[in-house]
Amino acid sequence: MKDLPLSKVYQLLEPGPVVLLTTASKGRANVMAMSWHMMIEFTPPLIACVVSGGDYSFAALRATKECVIAIPPLELARKVVEIGNCSGRDVDKFKKFALTPMPAERVAPPLVAECFANLECKVIDTRMVNRYNLFILEALKAWSDPAQKHPKTIHHRGYGKFAVDGEIIKLKSKMP
Amino acid sequence: MKDLPLSKVYQLLEPGPVVLLTTASKGRANVMAMSWHMMIEFTPPLIACVVSGGDYSFAALRATKECVIAIPPLELARKVVEIGNCSGRDVDKFKKFALTPMPAERVAPPLVAECFANLECKVIDTRMVNRYNLFILEALKAWSDPAQKHPKTIHHRGYGKFAVDGEIIKLKSKMP
Repeated sequence: MKDLPLSKVYQLLEPGPVVLLTTASKGRANVMAMSWHMMIEFTPPLIACVVSGGDYSFAALRATKECVIAIPPLELARKVVEIGNCSGRDVDKFKKFALTPMPAERVAPPLVAECFANLECKVIDTRMVNRYNLFILEALKAWSDPAQKHPKTIHHRGYGKFAVDGEIIKLKSKMP
Repeated sequence: MKDLPLSKVYQLLEPGPVVLLTTASKGRANVMAMSWHMMIEFTPPLIACVVSGGDYSFAALRATKECVIAIPPLELARKVVEIGNCSGRDVDKFKKFALTPMPAERVAPPLVAECFANLECKVIDTRMVNRYNLFILEALKAWSDPAQKHPKTIHHRGYGKFAVDGEIIKLKSKMP
């Protein structure tokens, strides 16, 4: 994994990929699949996300205020769905799905080595948690895997249906 | 435009497409391009979005508490970028870009006839506006255009670069 400038984080999340979210609690790491996230600021990169109160990750995220957002390439799609279909209450998902946890630099939850980008995040605002399960995160450190050259991401349309990135187009724009 | 059940709204936004946001203020409609949005609840569909304080739409949205989220197909990509590159302060964007405003049923801002789906929304929570420009919307009514069978959406990667929907995959899943 290689340093990714924080100013580029929004370029990874703005397109709306399904991501993985890792947490760590009582020395045990967990991972969930997540689609409800958005950028709210470029620099420092602030991210809003919804982690349902029913998710096992919820308590860990609220208590430890740390997580890693890992972005899986298309090749992990099947595992991503299976990760979303079981709970850390019942199973060690890193083990079950043969994912490789790597130590993060700024937070306790691990990076996911198989993902092409990893964002180390801390929770900076919990005011919307009780009402909407909405957390505000700040990305403290970002990594990308130089070995994954043109990763395609998956975009959930509901019930296991995903749009995969296709053509990339470039239009003249003044916007970042 | 045909009724779209509100329970299906998340399937349109969860994949993370670039959308258009229309507002109306003092009898004048405006439209902007927006990528920073996410679902926060299935039913009723609640949506979080960021509209920058610098955007002309910001004041209209905050004052009127109404908007329409319109989802443009790939064919509108060039117009979407151009919409994002000018301001309603200076120009009537519906006119300039030959977009057809259609009356909405529950809100004053117009639908965009050229978009394959339109969501009539009201602002239900402004507590995060001052700090993050973050609005919480409820979709009151949704429409889809039956004439657009398999629209592809665009997903912004920054600086006018977009991933276009490619292959659609279906994996066995227990998740909505």
